[in-house]
Amino acid sequence: MELWYTEKQTANYGITAKIKESLHTETSEFQDIAMIDTLEWGRMLVLDGCVMTTDRDEFVYHEMISHVALSAHKNPQRVLVVGGGDGGVIREVIKHPSVTHAVLAEIDGRVIDVSKKYLPAIACALDDPRVSVRVIDGIAHVNESEGQYDVIIVDSTDPIGPAVGLFARDFYEAIHRALRPDGIVVAQTESPFFNGELISRVYGDLSSLFTHTHLYLASIPTYPSGLWSFTIGSKQYDPKMIADPARANSLETKYYTPDLHAAAFALPRFAKELIAK
Amino acid sequence: MELWYTEKQTANYGITAKIKESLHTETSEFQDIAMIDTLEWGRMLVLDGCVMTTDRDEFVYHEMISHVALSAHKNPQRVLVVGGGDGGVIREVIKHPSVTHAVLAEIDGRVIDVSKKYLPAIACALDDPRVSVRVIDGIAHVNESEGQYDVIIVDSTDPIGPAVGLFARDFYEAIHRALRPDGIVVAQTESPFFNGELISRVYGDLSSLFTHTHLYLASIPTYPSGLWSFTIGSKQYDPKMIADPARANSLETKYYTPDLHAAAFALPRFAKELIAK
Repeated sequence: MELWYTEKQTANYGITAKIKESLHTETSEFQDIAMIDTLEWGRMLVLDGCVMTTDRDEFVYHEMISHVALSAHKNPQRVLVVGGGDGGVIREVIKHPSVTHAVLAEIDGRVIDVSKKYLPAIACALDDPRVSVRVIDGIAHVNESEGQYDVIIVDSTDPIGPAVGLFARDFYEAIHRALRPDGIVVAQTESPFFNGELISRVYGDLSSLFTHTHLYLASIPTYPSGLWSFTIGSKQYDPKMIADPARANSLETKYYTPDLHAAAFALPRFAKELIAK
Repeated sequence: MELWYTEKQTANYGITAKIKESLHTETSEFQDIAMIDTLEWGRMLVLDGCVMTTDRDEFVYHEMISHVALSAHKNPQRVLVVGGGDGGVIREVIKHPSVTHAVLAEIDGRVIDVSKKYLPAIACALDDPRVSVRVIDGIAHVNESEGQYDVIIVDSTDPIGPAVGLFARDFYEAIHRALRPDGIVVAQTESPFFNGELISRVYGDLSSLFTHTHLYLASIPTYPSGLWSFTIGSKQYDPKMIADPARANSLETKYYTPDLHAAAFALPRFAKELIAK
């Protein structure tokens, strides 16, 4: 018997992957958590029916949400990751030797536990001495962290369920306050093919708060449409520029390169038009 | 009853789309041809079970296989499209006012007929006076066209079935002969996530023949992995440079922009490594 997992990415479209084994399912306080082993993508973390990350293509998302902001900052020391309980973003963040404190604020401790057990190559940095793993509401933490962070990375689930507040304007205002005077925020902002309205709104909100606001893109096969957007807001540094080329050049990566850093901001015309208003 | 069309893009992975209506199916002399109407992507042309193009995302492929090569050429007049019976590439090619003759060499006349009937917005340029539609073997035509073309675009199906010869080294040698002294060739070369070996081989073959050979990428949601590669070989012009900025700027497009022209050549590290040997 063949088992396939199908994620409906929209009401009328999805991806389907042949399953080797279902490793774990549970309903936590916040969401349904599943870990399945697939033949094409390896292990796959699924939250509320949406693929969050897979062994095989996780590097794209984790590198691209992390290294653009961190490389644009001259000296990122204190970094906050909101969400991201699988640990992939933290793993990338601490590749920057300037980082002294990386805080993970994940609301659902079960995502951390399940990721540590089943995704060791992704969660590998969560026990690093520079990392504080805190099972807390990221919004509350941001609200009480005025002027604390150089970089804040919003590694949220989709804008439904527990993550709705992570796409709200007052959260971005709190992030602006929690950043130091040369701070940078970056958030995952879904697919330009499927979520144009969300992208327009987040871009509008961030650009009313930050000196520099930009959209950039990366190709993530298991995410809806395969093309994913990130919105970056910066108080001082131009996010398209690399502040410390030696540091950026020394990163060990599979997707990010210093050349790709600038190129990721070159948008297809239809994506450019989403943020042109 | 809900009907869904599932394309297995690999043995263990696929996409699935809800169907409004199956409009046409036939087996031509060369392949199975199907036209289905889907709720997410509109009409979808499927050859031998592989999605070739859809109403909603066709612009990415057709613009990106055409405008990079044509914009890199100073004065493209005679252009050959091998394959591409749906007409989408031809539609983009004749957006360049310098083009006086665009030849479509499609082996399967039924693809042309079905596309004209069901994909009028894609096939719209096939009756343009500058266009010659020829139902012929593209390989034979290239072999007998020494020094005839400024740009040759290989818009093939996947490297199985009727298209195998379009990925062979002796075909690229014939293309080199069919090009004028400042000619450019571009070929679709599948996904860097799934077809790394093919990309390496084609890049090696073209770079042994052409002064400049490069890989560039575009995001096509309904193609395997969502990330698609094109390999371009040029006798004289640097394909990364736009030869006539005024012409490139005046193109009416939904994906291609002059900024994106250069950025599309900035490769993710894993893709760069495919062609590093």
